[in-house]
Amino acid sequence: MAAHADDRISNASMENLTRQVEKRPISTIVFIVAMQKEAQPLIERLRLVKDVNSPFPKEVAWVLFKGIYKELNINIVCPGKDSALGVDSVCTVPASLVTYASIQALQPDLIINAGTAGGFKAKGASICDVYIVSSSAFHDRRIPVPVLDLYGVGMRKAFPTPNLIKELNLKVGRLSTGDSMDMSPHDKESITANDATVKDMEGAAVAYVADIFKVPTILIKGVTDIVDGNRPTSEEFLENLAAVTAKLDESITKVIDFISGKCLSDL
Amino acid sequence: MAAHADDRISNASMENLTRQVEKRPISTIVFIVAMQKEAQPLIERLRLVKDVNSPFPKEVAWVLFKGIYKELNINIVCPGKDSALGVDSVCTVPASLVTYASIQALQPDLIINAGTAGGFKAKGASICDVYIVSSSAFHDRRIPVPVLDLYGVGMRKAFPTPNLIKELNLKVGRLSTGDSMDMSPHDKESITANDATVKDMEGAAVAYVADIFKVPTILIKGVTDIVDGNRPTSEEFLENLAAVTAKLDESITKVIDFISGKCLSDL
Repeated sequence: MAAHADDRISNASMENLTRQVEKRPISTIVFIVAMQKEAQPLIERLRLVKDVNSPFPKEVAWVLFKGIYKELNINIVCPGKDSALGVDSVCTVPASLVTYASIQALQPDLIINAGTAGGFKAKGASICDVYIVSSSAFHDRRIPVPVLDLYGVGMRKAFPTPNLIKELNLKVGRLSTGDSMDMSPHDKESITANDATVKDMEGAAVAYVADIFKVPTILIKGVTDIVDGNRPTSEEFLENLAAVTAKLDESITKVIDFISGKCLSDL
Repeated sequence: MAAHADDRISNASMENLTRQVEKRPISTIVFIVAMQKEAQPLIERLRLVKDVNSPFPKEVAWVLFKGIYKELNINIVCPGKDSALGVDSVCTVPASLVTYASIQALQPDLIINAGTAGGFKAKGASICDVYIVSSSAFHDRRIPVPVLDLYGVGMRKAFPTPNLIKELNLKVGRLSTGDSMDMSPHDKESITANDATVKDMEGAAVAYVADIFKVPTILIKGVTDIVDGNRPTSEEFLENLAAVTAKLDESITKVIDFISGKCLSDL
């Protein structure tokens, strides 16, 4: 039954995406990045500038960095700091809000959700690996009612990028998303069912919103910690954040260089 | 540490809310209701009409019912059906999106998140009880990093309505929100820490978004199932949905009647 619903979702998405794969070069890209620290090297490398007249409502902390790089309109959107606590607004709710508002305000040809993730060594992941996501799903939306169970999992294929993957020699794996940094036994069971190689806290929510608007979406994730290893995720995450961010920045730059001048169907 | 952060959130919210408690009657109310079935009795009773020129983007399935009742502009917004699977778009992500879009499009004086919930008999809840929520928090956003842990929990006090609670003789309790219908041992631990009497799948997300825009928010929840009872939630939920929806409709009508002609500070 799960496989069947997957097909329904994928086919509907693919039909619509195919219609959108026009024969014109990609012009506007929106990056959704949960933590500004993850985006900083890229902001500097591409010489992006913080938009002081951001198109978002004045009440939100969402930050937009923008600029033109190799004839592409590059936008990086971060959910920014929580107004009461001052920490990055991670998790699926802020990610979905900024994805929605960015689609409305910036009308991107392509969304790229970039960030850090946990990796499973049993599926071949190592610290500092950078993955292109083949499909995303949720692992903490358990709804044991027929059909709502499939809705909860929300499995979606990412936009196919066979040429990009081949050219850049990137690793490919499935992503599972949940709002917790740790992994409970229930999460583990769902992540196994999702056949995930990487685990993050935003990807499937970004993909959900982008899918509503049929905006092609690529998810690219750098591995900061090994979930099925011996050390606590939070410890490894903080220790490896800088190194993985640098690696991710390198890969994303290559991705942008590859995209420049190409149509969606060339990816 | 948790109590300290609670205070910071509550004080910041209260200051802003106090500023907004103007001495003019409440004019526009937006109800956020996850399942259209939960909203149907109210839609009929208040003779609301589906807005065919809804202010939302054409791509979304979000549904707006509106009308004037006792000099109040009443709007009920439902996230609608998932386009691929045809089931109601429950969970925090769709709830946060419709709350955001409704605030932008309808500029409500007051948001009311109404719907069904699980109740804890250990905290005094019974099937068909209707609760006014005193505070909301998440129970499935575990982030074991200092301060991010508090962000994950996201405890927020609801808009205080002492007169409404007294007049209508409503039960009051704390709400805990998570994206799963069941309750894992990890969820249980967090729900206990949140001191929750009722458990739902949207409330804290609605409160999060409303808090960004400082829109006063009331959460009202009807108990469809006893979480700490002997029967599976999904079974009890489906069995009691109609009866609880009727009870909830009755209470919400009384709430609207009470609100009519009053200022926020009178609630």
